[in-house]
Order: sequence, then C-alpha cells, then structure tokens
Amino acid sequence: MPDYNAPLRDMRFVINEVFDFNAGYQAFGLEDVSPDLVSAVLDEAAKFAGGVLAPLNRTGDEEGCHIEDGVVTTPKGFKEAYQQYVDNGWGSMTGPVEYGGQGLPASLGLIVGEMVASANYSFSMYPGLSHGCLAAIRAHGNDEQKDLYLNKLTPGTWTGTMCLTEPHCGTDLGLVKTRALPQADGSYKVTGTKIFISCGEHDMAENIVHLVLAKLPDAPAGTKGISMFIVPKFLPDANGEVGERNSLKCGSLEHKMGIKASATCVMNFDDATGFLVGEANKGLNYMFTMMNHARLGTGMQGMCHGEASYQTALEYAKDRLQMRALNGAAEPDKPADPIIVHPDVRRMLLTMKAFNEGNRALTYYTAQLLDKAHYSKDEAERADAEEQLAFLTPICKAFMTETGLEVTNLGMQVLGGHGYIREWGQEQQVRDCRIAPIYEGTNGIQALDLLGRKVLMTQGKMMRAFTKQVHKFCQANEGHAQLGEYVNQLSALNVQWGEQVQKIGMKAMQNRDEIGAASMDFLMYSGYVTQAFLWLKMAASAQAELDAGTSEKDFYQAKLATQAFYFKRLLPRAQAHLSALESGADNLMDIAVSQF
Amino acid sequence: MPDYNAPLRDMRFVINEVFDFNAGYQAFGLEDVSPDLVSAVLDEAAKFAGGVLAPLNRTGDEEGCHIEDGVVTTPKGFKEAYQQYVDNGWGSMTGPVEYGGQGLPASLGLIVGEMVASANYSFSMYPGLSHGCLAAIRAHGNDEQKDLYLNKLTPGTWTGTMCLTEPHCGTDLGLVKTRALPQADGSYKVTGTKIFISCGEHDMAENIVHLVLAKLPDAPAGTKGISMFIVPKFLPDANGEVGERNSLKCGSLEHKMGIKASATCVMNFDDATGFLVGEANKGLNYMFTMMNHARLGTGMQGMCHGEASYQTALEYAKDRLQMRALNGAAEPDKPADPIIVHPDVRRMLLTMKAFNEGNRALTYYTAQLLDKAHYSKDEAERADAEEQLAFLTPICKAFMTETGLEVTNLGMQVLGGHGYIREWGQEQQVRDCRIAPIYEGTNGIQALDLLGRKVLMTQGKMMRAFTKQVHKFCQANEGHAQLGEYVNQLSALNVQWGEQVQKIGMKAMQNRDEIGAASMDFLMYSGYVTQAFLWLKMAASAQAELDAGTSEKDFYQAKLATQAFYFKRLLPRAQAHLSALESGADNLMDIAVSQF
Repeated sequence: MPDYNAPLRDMRFVINEVFDFNAGYQAFGLEDVSPDLVSAVLDEAAKFAGGVLAPLNRTGDEEGCHIEDGVVTTPKGFKEAYQQYVDNGWGSMTGPVEYGGQGLPASLGLIVGEMVASANYSFSMYPGLSHGCLAAIRAHGNDEQKDLYLNKLTPGTWTGTMCLTEPHCGTDLGLVKTRALPQADGSYKVTGTKIFISCGEHDMAENIVHLVLAKLPDAPAGTKGISMFIVPKFLPDANGEVGERNSLKCGSLEHKMGIKASATCVMNFDDATGFLVGEANKGLNYMFTMMNHARLGTGMQGMCHGEASYQTALEYAKDRLQMRALNGAAEPDKPADPIIVHPDVRRMLLTMKAFNEGNRALTYYTAQLLDKAHYSKDEAERADAEEQLAFLTPICKAFMTETGLEVTNLGMQVLGGHGYIREWGQEQQVRDCRIAPIYEGTNGIQALDLLGRKVLMTQGKMMRAFTKQVHKFCQANEGHAQLGEYVNQLSALNVQWGEQVQKIGMKAMQNRDEIGAASMDFLMYSGYVTQAFLWLKMAASAQAELDAGTSEKDFYQAKLATQAFYFKRLLPRAQAHLSALESGADNLMDIAVSQF
Repeated sequence: MPDYNAPLRDMRFVINEVFDFNAGYQAFGLEDVSPDLVSAVLDEAAKFAGGVLAPLNRTGDEEGCHIEDGVVTTPKGFKEAYQQYVDNGWGSMTGPVEYGGQGLPASLGLIVGEMVASANYSFSMYPGLSHGCLAAIRAHGNDEQKDLYLNKLTPGTWTGTMCLTEPHCGTDLGLVKTRALPQADGSYKVTGTKIFISCGEHDMAENIVHLVLAKLPDAPAGTKGISMFIVPKFLPDANGEVGERNSLKCGSLEHKMGIKASATCVMNFDDATGFLVGEANKGLNYMFTMMNHARLGTGMQGMCHGEASYQTALEYAKDRLQMRALNGAAEPDKPADPIIVHPDVRRMLLTMKAFNEGNRALTYYTAQLLDKAHYSKDEAERADAEEQLAFLTPICKAFMTETGLEVTNLGMQVLGGHGYIREWGQEQQVRDCRIAPIYEGTNGIQALDLLGRKVLMTQGKMMRAFTKQVHKFCQANEGHAQLGEYVNQLSALNVQWGEQVQKIGMKAMQNRDEIGAASMDFLMYSGYVTQAFLWLKMAASAQAELDAGTSEKDFYQAKLATQAFYFKRLLPRAQAHLSALESGADNLMDIAVSQF
C-alpha cells in the first residue's frame, strides 16, 4: 500500500532558499506570516495529507461514487475527511477575512494544496472547485450575493462548481445552448444540460452553489452572449441557510478513466432559479478571470501525481532484487542486486526527479508572482508580476501536465508488471493524471493561448517580462565557477527563444495557420527553457550552500546532479521541438481531409 | 460506439506494392499461397475481426473476467467467439499440417493477427499464448508429447500458457523457486506459485496446457538450472482426450489497468504432474527461442491499439464542430468548423498516422524476414534474415510499444473530455496498450538486448545485416527526383548510427554501465532511423504509382505527405536521443542511492 510523505525538505528549499518567500511576506506587510507560522502550516498539512487523505486514495478509486435517483454518495471516508478539512480550517486558509477566512497569501494556499492533491487528487477537487466559484462571486457578484454565498463558501460549509461544458461544446463556449429567462422578481429560470461537471452533486456539504454559463433570450450570438448565473442546489432562506430545493438534478455520473472518487456529473437544469452575476453577456470574461488560477492548479496536478509516483517507484527500486549490476555484484550477499543499480532504472528515476522538482520550482515561482501581483505596493512590480503570470500560466498548465504524464508512466514502468496492477497504486496515478492535459482548456488550447494571445498579440511584451528575469540571472552568474558552462547554454537558449518568436510572427502575418502549427512545439520548447532556468537557480543555491560548508551534503549534491542530468538528458529535447516548429504549417495543412 | 474497420488498402499497399510478398511466396515454393488466396484471407479476417470481435471489446473491458473457487469465466460472448475462431480455422492457419494445421506462412498469420488484435486485444491473447506454447513443444518436445499436445493445440481445441514469473522474479528468472521432483514413472511433481499468467485459467477451451519453468532438486544455481515442464490442467487419457484433473489451480485474478477480458492469473501448482520438455536445465534457452516471435507480436500491439484509436479520433475530428479555422470559416454554414481544420489537431492525427503506418511497414518487413528465415532455399539468405530479425526484434517490441502508447494518448487527446470517458473507447485503448512496454521483457530489457547482445556482442554484425539494406536503398535512390533530399538525410543517419556504436563500444570497454546508460536512447534512436527507412521505401513506391498515372491519387499523395511529416516533425527527435546517449553514464551513476 503506497504512502505519501510530503517532501518537506525540498519544499522548504524552494520556499526559503531559492525564492525567499519570507522576504516577500515582510515586504508586502504580511508580518503575521512569519517563518514559524509557515513552518507550522507545512508540518500540519503534511500530517493531514499523509495521515487522513492518502489512505483514502486507493479505496476512493476502487469504490468510486454512487448515484441513486440523482443523489450522489462519495466513497467511504470522504465525507468525514472533508469535515475534518473544514474543521481544521484548511478550506478557509486563503479565504477573505470578512467572510470568515484566514486571509493567508495565495502562495501558502498553493503549497498546502500541493500536499492535499498529491495525497488524494480526487478529494482535492471538491474544495478546489469551490475556490473558483468563490473567487468569481467575490470578484463579480453584488454585495447581497457575497454576503449570502461567501459566508458559506469560505469555510467550506457549502461547495461550488463551474458549469460550462455542454454535450456539443467544450472549448467553444460560444455554442452554449442553456437558456436563462428573466423573471419578474429579478431572478432567472435556467434550463439546459451541462456535462463533465466536477463535484456537481455529492454528500460532503449541505449545499452546492453552481455557477452556470447560459444565454439570455436577447443575447448576441457566440461568446459575446454568455452570462453567468448563481444556481444553488438549495435556495438560501431568509437567514441565509439552506432553504427550498431548486429544480436541478444530477442525471448521471460519467464513467471515467480515473479521478473516480471525484463525482463528474451530467447536470440537468429545468427552470431552475438562478441569479445573474455582474452584467449580462459578460459571463465568459468573468470565467476567464478565474481561469488563470485554475490552470495553475491543474498544472500542479502533473507534479502532484508525479511526486506520489516517484515516492513509490524509488522505494520499489531500492527494495526489488533483480539481476546483477553490469560492473559486478553490488550486494553479493543478496540473491540479486536492487534494481536501482541499473543505469536505465536510474535514468527513469532521475527523469521523474528532475521533472518533479523542476515543476515544483516553477509552481512556487508562480506562487510568489501571485503574491506580488496581489500585495506589492509597487505598481510596476504588480504589473510585471501579472505579465509574467499571464505568460507562464499556459506553460505551467500544459508543460507540467505533459511531463507529469511522462513521470507517472515512468513510475509505473519502474515497477514492471507490478506497476500495471492495482496493488501498488502506480497505475492509478497514471489514470488520475491523464485528465490533466485535457481539462481546464486542453493543452492544445494552452499552446494557442501562449503563442497567439500571450506572445504574439502583446508583441512579445509578456514574454519579455519573464525572459528579462532569465537574462538577469545569466548576467549575474556569468563565469560561475561550477555552473558557468550551463549559464552560457541557458543564455543562448534565451536568445534563441526570442528569435523564434520573431520568425513565427513574420510567418503568421502571411498565414495565421502558422501560429497553430508552431504552437504545441513552441509551448514545449518554452517549458524546457523555463525549467532550465529554474534548475540553474536551484543549482546556484545548492552550490552556495556546499561552498559554505553545509551539513546536508547529500541533499545539495543531489540538486547539482539532477540539474546536470536535466541539462544533459532532457534539455536536448528542446531542439527537437524547435526543428518541428520551424518546419512550418505546410506539412500539416497540405494534406486534404479526404487523404487522412 | 467505436468500430474497427481493417485498413485493407494500407495493408495491401505494404504487402503487394512495398514488399511484394507474392514474389517471396513463389520463390519459396509456396505456390498455393496465391494473390487470390491472400486477398480472400484478408477480406474474411477483416469481416471476422470487425463483425465478431470488435463488438466484444468494450463489453469485455467493462465486464472483465470472473473467478469463483478457482474457476474463471470470461466475459459474455468470448467463449462463443473463440469457438467461431476455431471453427473458421483462424487458429490453425499457420499450424503444422501434420497436426491438423493449414501450414500457411508466418507472414500471413501475423497480418491476420494484426486484425484480430486491433479489434479486441484481450481476445487475441488466448490464441496468442497458445501459439507460443505450441511452438515450444514443437521445437523441443519428444514425439509422444507432440502427438498428445500438438493435435489439440494446433486447431485451438486446447489452449496453452507460458508460466515464467513468480512473485519475487520477473526479469531475473534465475531466481525461480518452483520445484519439480522426479517420479518413478518418469513424470515430475511440480510445486510453486506463478503470477501474471495470461490466460492461465478460463472457460473457452476444454483443456489448458501450461509450460512451467521450474528447478530440479539437483539443479545448478541461477539461470543454468531451469527446466521446462508441460503441466496440463487435465492429464490426457489413453486416447489423448481430457482425463484426470491435475493438481493446479488459479488462486486469484490480478486487478489490472487494462486488457481486462484477458484472465491474468496467479497459478498455484501443488504436486502437479508435469513432464520434462527436452533436456533438464535447458528451459531458459528453450523459452528464449520462443521469445523473439512473442516479442514481435507484442510490438505489434502498439500498432494495433494505435490503429483502432486513430480510426475513432479521425472520425471524431471530422464530425466535431468547435471554433473556426484560424484563416477564416471553413464551413460557414455550420455553427463551427470540424476540428480537423485546426493545425494542432492535424499534428496529432498525422503523428498517429505516421507511427501507425510506419509501424505496420516495420511489422510486415519482419514478417517477410520470418518467411525468408523459414523457407528460403538459399542458406545465406536464411542466415541474413535471422540476423536482421534478431536485430530488429527488440526495436519492434520497444519502439512500437512506446510509440503505440504515444499514439493512443494522442487519440484520447483529440477527443478532449470525451476521450477520458468510457463511451468512445479511447481511454480503453490507452489502458490496454499500457501493458505492452512492460510484458514480454520490459522495454529497458529490450534496449539492453539490442545494444548489449545484438549489437556489441556481435561486433555490429547483426546490425550491419540491416544497415546494409538501408545503404542499398539509399544508393539505388540517390538523386531521386522528388525524394533525393530525404534519401541523403537517411544516408547520413545510417552512417551516424554505425559511428555511435563504435563510440559506445569504446566507452563500454572501460565501463560496462555505459551500455545500460546508452541503451534506451540508442533503441529509440534506432527506431526513428528504421522508420525513416521504411517511410522512404513507402514514399518511393507511392511516387512511382503517381508517376505512372494512378487513379488512386489521394492514397498515394497521403503517403508522400505523411512521409514528409515524419521527416520534418518526428525524425528530429532522433537527435535528442543521440544527445542524451552521448552524455554517457556519469550523469546516471554518480548520484548515490541515498541522494535520490
């Protein structure tokens, strides 16, 4: 039975040594967020994730959710674990103080979220979706709506959903058919079918607040005619408590490849009472303001499954005796050597380690940007953080989920046949992770968002906000005694990256399909360069500690070894992506549909 | 509900136009195997696969196998379909004529096998395992054993298994603990537990013949002390029919990620009566002679799932309306354009198409080698075919399953959220395919087999048998009007390939870990170069047809377009593998176990 042990040492390395979160908290006037508090939060979250949530991960997968006449029951233990989650205040950590939240910074919330999600991804979706719903109402709802719903969503007493997708439209929300009819009392009657609704119905909270995209009778066609509605499962009564049952129902549960303890619902709204959020026809804009945060969370999913898979694979590779080392027996007193002696097993483990820790560094880098964008007193710094975030979000979402899928598949491969059966949990990590490249905007959509909207539409401005950071780092570390050669390599990549954008931009002026044709390889290329930067930042911190005579030599030497591995064995893939994207659109577009 | 339509046009292109199977059949004296017969077999197999087996694929996955007190029941319809398979003579196609088989060549068997496996992989495992068992008894059994078992295994009245793996050993069969005690009557009492036994127990045939690896009491330690035993579920009676029940039982079924309709059994042998095959302590050698054929079949699994996944993805991409083409509406009268207009969707579909068709060409190339090795009257040609086969087998097994996994994952991605749910069958293709890189020797083992045993131990001899073919092709097509540039590229790769082997060989003399460190990237590099050769062979055939004024322009132009796509977008990955393998062993071996 696999365990999850939060990688606290690595988390603290990134938080304290690589990025110095504390300096940020102090600069932002968050004096209460002391190093002691952060440390205590990490320790407690690790205990809760490992002790309460991880043991429910496999049983949740095996049991799945049940539905009977529209009533959904979550797997055994989930309801109780959620109650503990709420009672311990995990749900309200980053929530607004005025609605009962603790007002802690987003960075800390993301890091606790990592542990919860690594221990039990399906569980983490229930509060995860609620946060998106809460944020949307907080940003765009009126005061009455905020009072009614945020007081319940903030502590987690009620949960929330986002109801976007319909049978005929996922990516293309302009095709939404759900209708909202205005009523005399200012409310609306909402009718339509939504599919793939995560946590659309369950037994963990007393009420569920659906945020539904729908069209008004006189709405303009396409995406400009979409409005957002609050459609609660139970209408709040005069005291703001659970009142009358609304006219909506879960029609069925989807049979999915993974995340089976998360109830994915077909939701039928049948003249359900709803309330307009903000202005009419602005629903898609409102949704998009929530999207970036959700996409960072989904990107993190790749790292979470990857970490859990690595822990099991490493343990197995140290224990499993099979064959002898090629250079002679490593443990001659045993019937065979542990498989970690074999170079190819190490290649798999180091690939996992390099992507996991690189993805963690990327996640925490964006976590710090979230804080800067929210708290910084310097307007230019806030704007810069927003630009970097906008640029990095599609990279986080797509690169971290693509690599997460590779990592979980390697984690299964290390176990051989034992990875393919249920017992060790490795195949569940692959199945659960597989949704991440799909939802919250497929990775193909992320690639278009990156290259089209974020890079070309801003004429490289958002990208430069980030490449400037890479450039600064390279300048500061030019001629670094141990890392200088790698710094030069990164510096050259950073220049090549910008040049590619120029070239694609020129081609796209002739033919817009050049953007789509280059997009996915450009995103992956960008991901490899971004991770090269973060790995060098980590290596520089580790080298400094070693130079200062640290007592934790193993930890820091491992960082240097993994950075070297990344540059030598994974970064070369960037050039393959470059060749592919440079080949242009013709090799994709010249073939007729009839010729496929 | 996904269908499977055998890609007969593409199969015939490779069989008739690229490789000219018929010329081989005639040269080998197989006059009965006429073009008409081959064509009729293809048509009938396509009907059986699409009409009888494909409809059981999803229901088989959903229902899975059942066990009650050691008795295993296969999913609804499997038993009847197997009876049809036997009655129609599909099982006996390539079987020995003297035991009731039809004696058709292995090449034809492999191609029919492709259709059966593409339609329903789980089903195909039952006859597939039998073939391995049959081949082992035919090659190494005595006359009495052949008479008793081959008369039943050849038509498929009885099925067979291969019982190798035990809880503590998979790759390292030297650790086998199952014991065989000699009895006064010349038989043995076999005792031990075998796990992961495909088709170890089921209700489809009247008897199951287990081939069990076990150790005699006085056996030498390790792999040199393993013997092979026939241990039938029911002992044959005096007439060779089902007699007394043997003392063996299925203890449980494994809960697997996929191939759920294939019963994967824990088999307990408890003083079961067994019969030695061939000589004592030669069991592993016997098993390895079977391995190559089985590994080709497993490699094909990647292509089979890939083909099935492509068919569904293509159909979906043509039907699903979502967003507009970047250069303006392609179908303005519809609410949105079919997603096949989007460059990134085409990138996914073309990647699938390129790997599937490239893998099919590789499979059929080896199929022709199987015939040559068996039937050729020229000893040198037979030896050459054996060498090429030995070299290509690990490439087929590992490269085709790695790319098959990529293809099925892309096939799921094209469908977005609809790919993640059961309905369209795409997630089942991913789950079923995922075992292929693991069983029949993990892909890491294949990589060691390729670089260590096949390439370096023969000092490049086996490899040269194949690269000579590439060289000849390049010479013959130098300066080709349309393909010359690609031919030059392949020619350069072919040289680079050999040079790499020299370099690795030199390094390996200092440090044997260099072999393991280079192995997986060397295998993938080799796979990409091999496919480049096969894609150019196909392109040359297609260009010739176009030059001759074919009436099937779409088909041949698609071949040329896909070949160009392969060279521009997939082949660049070979250089990333080259960089990784050139980086050597230090970046894998220098990190201490405690530092992982």
